[in-house]
Amino acid sequence: MEDKIDLAAKLALLDEHYQPGIVGHFNDNKLVVVKVLGEFVWHKHDDTDDFFMVLEGCLTIQMRDRDVELSEGEVFVVPRGVEHCPKADEEAYVLLIEPRDTPNTGDAGGALSREPVEL
Amino acid sequence: MEDKIDLAAKLALLDEHYQPGIVGHFNDNKLVVVKVLGEFVWHKHDDTDDFFMVLEGCLTIQMRDRDVELSEGEVFVVPRGVEHCPKADEEAYVLLIEPRDTPNTGDAGGALSREPVEL
Repeated sequence: MEDKIDLAAKLALLDEHYQPGIVGHFNDNKLVVVKVLGEFVWHKHDDTDDFFMVLEGCLTIQMRDRDVELSEGEVFVVPRGVEHCPKADEEAYVLLIEPRDTPNTGDAGGALSREPVEL
Repeated sequence: MEDKIDLAAKLALLDEHYQPGIVGHFNDNKLVVVKVLGEFVWHKHDDTDDFFMVLEGCLTIQMRDRDVELSEGEVFVVPRGVEHCPKADEEAYVLLIEPRDTPNTGDAGGALSREPVEL
C-alpha cells in the first residue's frame, strides 16, 4: 500500500526548474510537484482543468486577459481550454494535479516539454 | 471566470468540525476544506480514492491494519475500498479532493454525515 507523501522531501529531489516530478496518484490523476523559476510557455489543455497550489514562494498564472498572483497556500484552477503561462520571478514550489496523460506543455510542446520523473 | 482560492481564508469561514466546505472544482472533483478535531467515523468509498493534504496541524488516518500520521505539507491518498477513520487530537486543517458526489461519511452514514457548504 502507498505511504504518505512528504511534498517538501519530494521537491528536494528535483534539480531542474519546470521538471515535473510525480509523487502519487489520485484516481486517474497524477500528483505532481515542480520547482518553478522564470517564465514557462504559453499553452492550454483542451481536455482538462489544471490545478495549481503554491507550496512555497509566489507564482503568477498569466492568462490572455489577466494575471492571477498566487502565494503559499493559495490554489487556482485554470479552466480547460484557457491559455496560460506560469511565471515566477523567484523560485517557487508548486503542487499540480492533472490527468495521468496530460503533457506539461499542453498543446504547445517545445523546449520545456518534459516527461515527468517518478519521485 | 473563477478566482484564486485562499485556503486559509476559506477555512476561517467554517464553524463546525468535520463540516466540509467546497472551495472549488477540478474537472469532476470538488475541492474541500475541513477543520478536524476528534475522531471521525470509520467508512470507505468503494468508487474513489480519497485525497488528504494537511494544511495545518496533524492528522491521523486510521486504517484497519495501520495508522498514517500526517503533518503540515503531507499528503495521503486512501485507496478506494479501504476503510479509514481520520482522527486529530488537536484541531487541524485539511484539504480534501474527491468526486463531486462523494458523501463525506462514505458507506457509513450516521451522525457526522454533512452536505458540504459552498464557501
